[in-house]
Amino acid sequence: MVTIKDIANRLGIAPSTVSKGLNDANDISPDLKKQVLDTAIEMGYVTKKMKKETRKRLCIFIENMLYEKPEDFGFDILLGFKQAAIRDNWEVHIVPMTPVLQMKEPYDRYMLRNQYHGGFLVGFALKDPWMKQLENTTIPTVLFDNYIKRNPNVAYIGTDSYEGIDLAIDHLHDLGHTHIALLNGSKDSMITANRYDAYISSMQNHNLDIEEDLIAYGYYVEESAKYHVTDLINHGATAIICGNDLLAIGAIKECLRQNIRVPEDVSIIGYDDIPTAETTTPSLTTIKQDRLDLGKNSYAALYWLIAKVPISRSLLRPQLIIRNSTGTTTLRGSKKN
Amino acid sequence: MVTIKDIANRLGIAPSTVSKGLNDANDISPDLKKQVLDTAIEMGYVTKKMKKETRKRLCIFIENMLYEKPEDFGFDILLGFKQAAIRDNWEVHIVPMTPVLQMKEPYDRYMLRNQYHGGFLVGFALKDPWMKQLENTTIPTVLFDNYIKRNPNVAYIGTDSYEGIDLAIDHLHDLGHTHIALLNGSKDSMITANRYDAYISSMQNHNLDIEEDLIAYGYYVEESAKYHVTDLINHGATAIICGNDLLAIGAIKECLRQNIRVPEDVSIIGYDDIPTAETTTPSLTTIKQDRLDLGKNSYAALYWLIAKVPISRSLLRPQLIIRNSTGTTTLRGSKKN
Repeated sequence: MVTIKDIANRLGIAPSTVSKGLNDANDISPDLKKQVLDTAIEMGYVTKKMKKETRKRLCIFIENMLYEKPEDFGFDILLGFKQAAIRDNWEVHIVPMTPVLQMKEPYDRYMLRNQYHGGFLVGFALKDPWMKQLENTTIPTVLFDNYIKRNPNVAYIGTDSYEGIDLAIDHLHDLGHTHIALLNGSKDSMITANRYDAYISSMQNHNLDIEEDLIAYGYYVEESAKYHVTDLINHGATAIICGNDLLAIGAIKECLRQNIRVPEDVSIIGYDDIPTAETTTPSLTTIKQDRLDLGKNSYAALYWLIAKVPISRSLLRPQLIIRNSTGTTTLRGSKKN
Repeated sequence: MVTIKDIANRLGIAPSTVSKGLNDANDISPDLKKQVLDTAIEMGYVTKKMKKETRKRLCIFIENMLYEKPEDFGFDILLGFKQAAIRDNWEVHIVPMTPVLQMKEPYDRYMLRNQYHGGFLVGFALKDPWMKQLENTTIPTVLFDNYIKRNPNVAYIGTDSYEGIDLAIDHLHDLGHTHIALLNGSKDSMITANRYDAYISSMQNHNLDIEEDLIAYGYYVEESAKYHVTDLINHGATAIICGNDLLAIGAIKECLRQNIRVPEDVSIIGYDDIPTAETTTPSLTTIKQDRLDLGKNSYAALYWLIAKVPISRSLLRPQLIIRNSTGTTTLRGSKKN
């Protein structure tokens, strides 16, 4: 166990000065305070306050994702996390985050200053300032849908994309589809890359040809679909698996605009099962991620990271929810074969 | 919640007969008893005894692996599991298993009859009778180093092979090796397939050529190494990554027998970090799987499966333990470049 004296020895200063730095005292220079905190973090020092059971605190940071209303994608993720954490008497804080706020203070300093035992980061982008810092953080941290190589303090939580895409292709294949397109999300995301790999692997396992013209990249928003749907259909697609439900809903709207019938002419599958997936017309067949379970599993991983069990990744099973946007192929499909 | 009445309705028999079947009474025919139990399992029925906190029981089944002495591979896995489970007041039974025993009674029946809430299966082979049954089991089950597709009641636990092999290739690459061989374990194992994929992917990421002659398959035992080591070295290998420590120890012995120096002529890396890895000569550089943590994480996954969170896979970080069986390349290596 690292003590204040160890930190003092490392820095060649008095233990009382280290105490001042850790307790945010006024009679110590900002530079020295920073140095004390940084060294304390590097050496894995745990403050007395952090040790007290009554002050057990975790923090959820969220950005690029709505979470305040029950229909928001993030709502159930946060709820699941809190439900599971409260049983173990954790206090959970929720902090909306931005790249600018991340620039202001390094992740480890923020966590130590606020006496958080662990963090759960939701909706972060690869280019966020804190993401780079996670490669070396000593704070137990769980990332939703992002992976950090080699750091035993950071775990990746998500849903198994391979099984999700495979369920979708299985369903379409059973319906007679052979020209199955992938309308993926933005290229700079780990999840996009996973779903591409999953698509290639599942198409091969189903003995279906992979055609470059049936793979497109958009963004994870509804408007993005219209730039790709026509192209995919012109290249022979009778079914389109979309990177998320928003893209799928955009694809359905674009089809309707062009008098292409869903699912009679083209089947559409989404990803996530957001609340609106059920109420759109036709209702959306989609690969469900259970967000409450994702939240619970994120807390579970954080709990074990705090207990020094180096979880690398923990993935949930997806579930295919079959609704009305998928059906058997019509003439188009058979003509193409 | 499924009740005795539900089971009775399904079977078209009296609830009292269902009770007799569930309680192993004597005045009910064996056939009907079997039918009651099978239907109860299928419908997810939980017996009163299972509900009582005082009878919370889990079962670890182990085969093909030693576990009774501290130096046995399975010892710490079972210990870690029990340590974590006991905190939550579980009673944990350990049952040595064989294919013949599995033939005698289906997995679900065995679990229900013995009132286990969940099972942890260690060392099972793909061809074991129970493995096929796991595709449809309703019992929360964790598998060490094996994966069952799509069943939300079964989770796979292990160490991340991709990161493990990548750490090894990184280390060898830093030492100047370019002709790195993979002496893998037996072909019918999921882990063998994962390590092959990991090897291909990491070699590509390091811009190293993949040569078919530098990839061999043996078995996960020491004797297996001698049939492959000479071939790999004759084909230019200056380093060999082995599927486990036993293979690596066998490879070192074979090198010594042929006056090939380790690591001056050839570097050898193992996988697992079994206790003897440290005491062999030269001591073995190896990719460590922390078995105590594997046990804890297996309990963690089972805990959440019982809570209906459908964990698909949960993997730990491996760690590269650098000892004396790896070093810089000598003439051989540079000649080959």
